[in-house]
Amino acid sequence: MQTLALDTYPIHIGPVAESLSRTLQQQAFSQLFVLADENTKAHCWPLIAPVVQPYNPVVIEINSGEAHKNLRTCEYIWQQLMEHRAGRDALLLNLGGGVIGDMGGFAASTFKRGIPFVQIPTTLLAQVDASIGGKLGVDFMQVKNSIGLFCNPQAVLADPAFLSTLSDRELRSGYAEVIKHSLIADAAQWGQLQSLTNLRQADWAQIIPASLNIKKQIVETDPFEKGLRKALNFGHTIGHAIEGHALETDAPLLHGEAIAIGMVCEAFLSCRQQNLPKAQLEQIADYLTQVYSKVALDPAHYPVYLRLMGNDKKNEGQAINFSLLPEAGTVAVNQTADAGPITEALDFYNRL
Amino acid sequence: MQTLALDTYPIHIGPVAESLSRTLQQQAFSQLFVLADENTKAHCWPLIAPVVQPYNPVVIEINSGEAHKNLRTCEYIWQQLMEHRAGRDALLLNLGGGVIGDMGGFAASTFKRGIPFVQIPTTLLAQVDASIGGKLGVDFMQVKNSIGLFCNPQAVLADPAFLSTLSDRELRSGYAEVIKHSLIADAAQWGQLQSLTNLRQADWAQIIPASLNIKKQIVETDPFEKGLRKALNFGHTIGHAIEGHALETDAPLLHGEAIAIGMVCEAFLSCRQQNLPKAQLEQIADYLTQVYSKVALDPAHYPVYLRLMGNDKKNEGQAINFSLLPEAGTVAVNQTADAGPITEALDFYNRL
Repeated sequence: MQTLALDTYPIHIGPVAESLSRTLQQQAFSQLFVLADENTKAHCWPLIAPVVQPYNPVVIEINSGEAHKNLRTCEYIWQQLMEHRAGRDALLLNLGGGVIGDMGGFAASTFKRGIPFVQIPTTLLAQVDASIGGKLGVDFMQVKNSIGLFCNPQAVLADPAFLSTLSDRELRSGYAEVIKHSLIADAAQWGQLQSLTNLRQADWAQIIPASLNIKKQIVETDPFEKGLRKALNFGHTIGHAIEGHALETDAPLLHGEAIAIGMVCEAFLSCRQQNLPKAQLEQIADYLTQVYSKVALDPAHYPVYLRLMGNDKKNEGQAINFSLLPEAGTVAVNQTADAGPITEALDFYNRL
Repeated sequence: MQTLALDTYPIHIGPVAESLSRTLQQQAFSQLFVLADENTKAHCWPLIAPVVQPYNPVVIEINSGEAHKNLRTCEYIWQQLMEHRAGRDALLLNLGGGVIGDMGGFAASTFKRGIPFVQIPTTLLAQVDASIGGKLGVDFMQVKNSIGLFCNPQAVLADPAFLSTLSDRELRSGYAEVIKHSLIADAAQWGQLQSLTNLRQADWAQIIPASLNIKKQIVETDPFEKGLRKALNFGHTIGHAIEGHALETDAPLLHGEAIAIGMVCEAFLSCRQQNLPKAQLEQIADYLTQVYSKVALDPAHYPVYLRLMGNDKKNEGQAINFSLLPEAGTVAVNQTADAGPITEALDFYNRL
């Protein structure tokens, strides 16, 4: 068991039965609720069931997938808490990926003005990304996480054993954030990652804490995303827009798949506007297209992407905001670009 | 202009044109939004229009009344913010009573994980109650404020001039919180208030800051309602339930009207369980039934009241929690009562 002690809560990385048992003993609560979806109920619940059963938990089951990360599902969660007469000292365990964690955390922190919650991230994406930062929320009007708030869990319990329950696509999706952390802050780690091609053979018990450490340092410097924390948005301005649009089609992309495209496009912008060396742009584009399948972006959708970027939370006023790379391992926040260069960046990806 | 400086933001009591003008000059924002209802748009907007017009504000107008304090109206507010491309540095002015302040503050603090907002309370209730405490939210499943959070505004601008726009009923409704503050913390003020019978002749510029000062001291000692702050719930356990039920009938009660009933009932419980002197119970019942019209409570509705009390945020576990008065001017939090004494208390009020 490794523990990363943040300023406000611990992240335990290791067997969940052990970390959960310890967490429940330390916590005073009147009732236990578990939020899960059909997948985590089937595949992840068995790992925690022996620990939680003695507390007679109420399991709230929702449908999996980003399409259900909305206010309707939140209302269902609030309704279940209300019908089971959850008091303010009830505890909610969020067992699942980013959708469960973001939405369950939002539902908990707004139910009766906030009940405590513990995150049990079961995807690589949630383990390396959503574990730190206290960002919670749901999607609204096609804009990801546009209704939400910052609130910290009591603890995060990340068990690499859950990763064996993931499909290859999901594992790759989470890996995009690992790549991003290295690109914005750790050139040496970026160098190492490029030799990793079979994700099933990765040493996650080493990679996860190392990646979390990068995020920890950035977030603790800037908890409310006033400045430095925007570094974490590398790849996300364009990536979120592509993801938001794809969500409405019959070929939705996973978050990391969209962010991988966004990172290629924003590396192109970095080369154009921040003098990222051309050789580094090529390395980034090569590795990302090797790990992730290429997706053809229809130029007819570019205006939709641009409109979605215009609604991004990271913008102040009307300009579209980016975090770009002067070189691999460093980042420049509060850069802007308009439709012209963004279109070139999308075309660059399409031509790879 | 009087200013009450809280730890986290100022409350300016005096002409709103002056306080708003100063607040907008001190604040950096990209876009200005004003939330109002049909009443405050007609009667209160003229007082702020000359100050805000130069900023080209977008006015979001919603229907007045507690019945509209729900997630549907919130979604409308979020939608308007989104359609006008509000960035995180947009500023929302909430021009209205408790519904506008609680819901507008909740909508602001969850839009893109939080945009700044300024409260301009236009009712006595909002000026003396909602101005302090950062409690925001909407009603859900007939339970008041059951979805919400704690978040502070940039400033509160309370202008006694707005009180002339109120009906007698609304003015009396707000006055219930003034009475409550005196009963839980200031026996001398309680003594003075009992000689006030014509609320139109009250010296609000003196009463409002004095009443706010009581709440300030309580809330700053306990910002997240872990202990002492529950003192402010005197009259609210029973009052909220009566209000919640009345909301669903064709004779809804204003908040303070319901709280006035709740205070009589909970003073009865105080007499029974906390040795509140019988003479003081009679003073409380006399003054409250003199200021507020009696409402007949149908015993057939008692089970609904009890069920609603069971869902109250203030409960921990299953017991029904009260803040009671050992004597006028002092309070005991975390008291409990069950259906028997609560029924007697309702009967006591009915017999007055």
